[in-house]
Amino acid sequence: MQRQDRDGQGVPDFGGLVDQHCHSVVASELGETAFASLLTESDRQPADPHAVWDSSLGLAVRRWCAPELDLPAFAPVEDYLERRRELGAAEVTRRMLRRSGFDACLVDTGLTEAAGVPLLSPDEFGGLAGADVHEIVRIERIAERATPGLTADGWADGVSTALHRAARHAVGLKSVVAYRHGLDFDPARPSPAETRRAAGEYLASGGGRLTHPVLLRHLLWTALESGLPLQLHTGFGDPDLTLHRSDPSLLTDFVRAAEPLGTPLVLLHCWPYHRQAAWLAHAFPHVFCDVGLTLTHTGAPGARQVLAETLELAPFRKVLFSTDGYGLPELHRVGAAAFRHALAAWLPEAVPGNAVEAARIASLIGRENAVRLYGLADAPV
Amino acid sequence: MQRQDRDGQGVPDFGGLVDQHCHSVVASELGETAFASLLTESDRQPADPHAVWDSSLGLAVRRWCAPELDLPAFAPVEDYLERRRELGAAEVTRRMLRRSGFDACLVDTGLTEAAGVPLLSPDEFGGLAGADVHEIVRIERIAERATPGLTADGWADGVSTALHRAARHAVGLKSVVAYRHGLDFDPARPSPAETRRAAGEYLASGGGRLTHPVLLRHLLWTALESGLPLQLHTGFGDPDLTLHRSDPSLLTDFVRAAEPLGTPLVLLHCWPYHRQAAWLAHAFPHVFCDVGLTLTHTGAPGARQVLAETLELAPFRKVLFSTDGYGLPELHRVGAAAFRHALAAWLPEAVPGNAVEAARIASLIGRENAVRLYGLADAPV
Amino acid sequence: MQRQDRDGQGVPDFGGLVDQHCHSVVASELGETAFASLLTESDRQPADPHAVWDSSLGLAVRRWCAPELDLPAFAPVEDYLERRRELGAAEVTRRMLRRSGFDACLVDTGLTEAAGVPLLSPDEFGGLAGADVHEIVRIERIAERATPGLTADGWADGVSTALHRAARHAVGLKSVVAYRHGLDFDPARPSPAETRRAAGEYLASGGGRLTHPVLLRHLLWTALESGLPLQLHTGFGDPDLTLHRSDPSLLTDFVRAAEPLGTPLVLLHCWPYHRQAAWLAHAFPHVFCDVGLTLTHTGAPGARQVLAETLELAPFRKVLFSTDGYGLPELHRVGAAAFRHALAAWLPEAVPGNAVEAARIASLIGRENAVRLYGLADAPV
Repeated sequence: MQRQDRDGQGVPDFGGLVDQHCHSVVASELGETAFASLLTESDRQPADPHAVWDSSLGLAVRRWCAPELDLPAFAPVEDYLERRRELGAAEVTRRMLRRSGFDACLVDTGLTEAAGVPLLSPDEFGGLAGADVHEIVRIERIAERATPGLTADGWADGVSTALHRAARHAVGLKSVVAYRHGLDFDPARPSPAETRRAAGEYLASGGGRLTHPVLLRHLLWTALESGLPLQLHTGFGDPDLTLHRSDPSLLTDFVRAAEPLGTPLVLLHCWPYHRQAAWLAHAFPHVFCDVGLTLTHTGAPGARQVLAETLELAPFRKVLFSTDGYGLPELHRVGAAAFRHALAAWLPEAVPGNAVEAARIASLIGRENAVRLYGLADAPV
Repeated sequence: MQRQDRDGQGVPDFGGLVDQHCHSVVASELGETAFASLLTESDRQPADPHAVWDSSLGLAVRRWCAPELDLPAFAPVEDYLERRRELGAAEVTRRMLRRSGFDACLVDTGLTEAAGVPLLSPDEFGGLAGADVHEIVRIERIAERATPGLTADGWADGVSTALHRAARHAVGLKSVVAYRHGLDFDPARPSPAETRRAAGEYLASGGGRLTHPVLLRHLLWTALESGLPLQLHTGFGDPDLTLHRSDPSLLTDFVRAAEPLGTPLVLLHCWPYHRQAAWLAHAFPHVFCDVGLTLTHTGAPGARQVLAETLELAPFRKVLFSTDGYGLPELHRVGAAAFRHALAAWLPEAVPGNAVEAARIASLIGRENAVRLYGLADAPV
Repeated sequence: MQRQDRDGQGVPDFGGLVDQHCHSVVASELGETAFASLLTESDRQPADPHAVWDSSLGLAVRRWCAPELDLPAFAPVEDYLERRRELGAAEVTRRMLRRSGFDACLVDTGLTEAAGVPLLSPDEFGGLAGADVHEIVRIERIAERATPGLTADGWADGVSTALHRAARHAVGLKSVVAYRHGLDFDPARPSPAETRRAAGEYLASGGGRLTHPVLLRHLLWTALESGLPLQLHTGFGDPDLTLHRSDPSLLTDFVRAAEPLGTPLVLLHCWPYHRQAAWLAHAFPHVFCDVGLTLTHTGAPGARQVLAETLELAPFRKVLFSTDGYGLPELHRVGAAAFRHALAAWLPEAVPGNAVEAARIASLIGRENAVRLYGLADAPV
């Protein structure tokens, strides 16, 4: 694996990162409005695309990505966008991804376009990043795709078959039940009769976007049986979601019910409930947490703070790095830089004067925990 | 507008502040106990007025206000109170307000006294502050005042008329539904029949303090129709309120229901849910947030932290400055100083070595966002 | 009282600490797994005891305790455990406790063993620590012990008698209702008939661990009558507890109902809801909060942050120091060091250049508030 030199941020070089949750990027040029729409979790059309840059993420892009385009840090937005057009999307993407320093990326294939533009295939993405690529499968999407042709009686089996088939190519599964219902769902596994009745209701309503609480629960329990780590969106996201219903603490009874199965549960994003996620990772052997999306969005001062808060209670072998980069390769670049920046601030306070320990802890969080959790040493690339 | 020199705190001078939410101050001398009772959000009589100063706000007053009285920073409380008496309330008030550096203040006229002493009129307040004054009207107070003489059948119309009349002089409205019910109210607009029935119940119980959930909702929806920005108390306050029922995330369904109207919603205070407020401002175009009251109370180390947490996700054009100063001009002075202190710490981390960007962002949050949101350039003074 | 020299952490020497909530320690040698099991709030058997050290608490032990064993800070875990065996448990315990610098410890006697090994008696513990020892009585345990032999009709009286008898030796009471139910309990005092009926149900189910919501409430109200300060576990703990149901804000209606009695309520631990606890201490005269367990677990960078967040709103006379040390004397040592470290970071920001005020505030939080609240000057040792 090729080594990149990093950000000169004072983080011991512990080898390439493993991005345990990201998406692919768009291949083609983006207009100013499309670009801006990918710089925010809001899905509302920005009234003024320029205004979107006035955020911690906007500053982070100007800070860490402008130099990759041979511009000074904090170059004006106009200069940034002009230089991006000049270099072309392919070159910009290659630079951003290469310089992120990924050894491997776990790509959630549940989204196939961004701002209306198709995403690169995982293999194309991995090629540009110079990184191994593994797949994360989104379980609600598997179920929605498997539904046409199924009857109420056969829905559970049909979906289970589809899920296990998809899981054969994947190193992990992912659920967006936070969006489809909220994390305050009934933790009990539904009975076959309940599932059958619910499938009937779902099919009668025409299928499509799966929001039936009983089917969402059934799907989670089916996913747990696969043994693959199950990633769960928690915390902030787009306006579809209600924030306090995405508090991972609401999952506690589900965490308890799932514990005997031993399937790892990976809490994604978590902000502003990252301390709650950290405690779950502390208390329950099968719970892990990451700070992806969050560090990407919060920018330089925020990333330091949020990582430190996570590491108050989360054991260091339970925290995973990710970017949740999606659409724009700038997001992967910023996510990697924010993580290194945050670690470079935290490590000297946590292990002052001890570079060996600092490097060891950085390596656990930045790559080893993911390699171990997802079995990446043995995983098919 | 006269410029004041600020606090030597390293904040680029971006012009005077616009305090988007404050109250007026008492004109007369205050005894030690009355003064102490205004240094806390608790409304319980302090057993020992001196003890009230042992708080982050108490330290902030001694740090930033003592020098305005020609005393060293952190002068003893006795010295502070003695010097205050010596100078007299009028001179102290003038010094505190002038040195806060306000260009304009939006004064909530819903409270007319503090610690049993009448507040100055908004015009008197503005004169002492050397600032333009605009009015914020508290909707529950309008409704309570309009109620005598109304029947159940006429209540909705009568209140609507009173609200629209009051709104003609105002640049914004404000709701204290967090105190009167909690933010976990039913977001749907009540039907005329429901409102009529509820008005009957309210009138039958003698009117007075409005806490009927249906009427509070009706009032919010009436306020939304005015088009004026609607400020909502969220987060901490006095012991009347239940903190977890003041989490602004509980407003999410109301925010969604109100979105088609386009009326701006301004989340006030927010602490300790300021990250939740920041996400709402990030996700929804019509949501704004401020950090007033919070920065005032949390003092120097806290203000830095809380502002930084807010700016993790809140777009810079969605955050507003305020003090929520009330009764004591020290609170306005501390609110302005804490804000500058917090910005002066955050800006160099967010845009290191870039004074132009730092000044631009400071200006957005400190004044321009409010000027734009409330139309202050065109507003009658 | 013998003075210890502290940690060279720049905290003004304000005299010995009063640890307002801790447990005793085990007297005998501990194997590697038993030691590790006491380094985490998780009660699950660690798969790899060495991995447990990879946490902020693990680093804190290596940072602050290794030097007490004549090892360099951050010595490897193997070296630490070997040196610990070499010195023997008695000597290690003596060193850790003495060097913590406690004048007095309030020992919760509700737990009598740790990792299956008996704890030292409070007197033995105090002897090793060179500190006065006072007792905190756990009310649920009193009730469980008093139950055998009681009838449904006599349960309330029998438990009340037992509680008042136990309280005669104690300076405070403690409730773990957060574990037994959650803090979202009905705040009203149950009627005698309700309590009788509930006692009948409890006795019919064989007694034992008390989780009946009505009896838990009855017990709390009985405890309030004693007049002794009532400590309440809030916030994080072991996996028995559901985090969001331990938010102290859920106690608000109970706090209001208890206010006329004047009995002090002391919120323990609180993390990640320490800001909520701080507001309750700010708003209600009879509410206090501590940061024990939390500072112990969060390590050096975290302790600074959490203490600062608590002091944003909590009046300085309402915050108490504790370690919640349990089983391992390292936890007492780390708790004391983390507190001094956190104060040494916060004080210069809060009262820059004012050593007298810094010492006064440190003394309030570190000892005086506890002396006053628990009447320790007059308490029998």
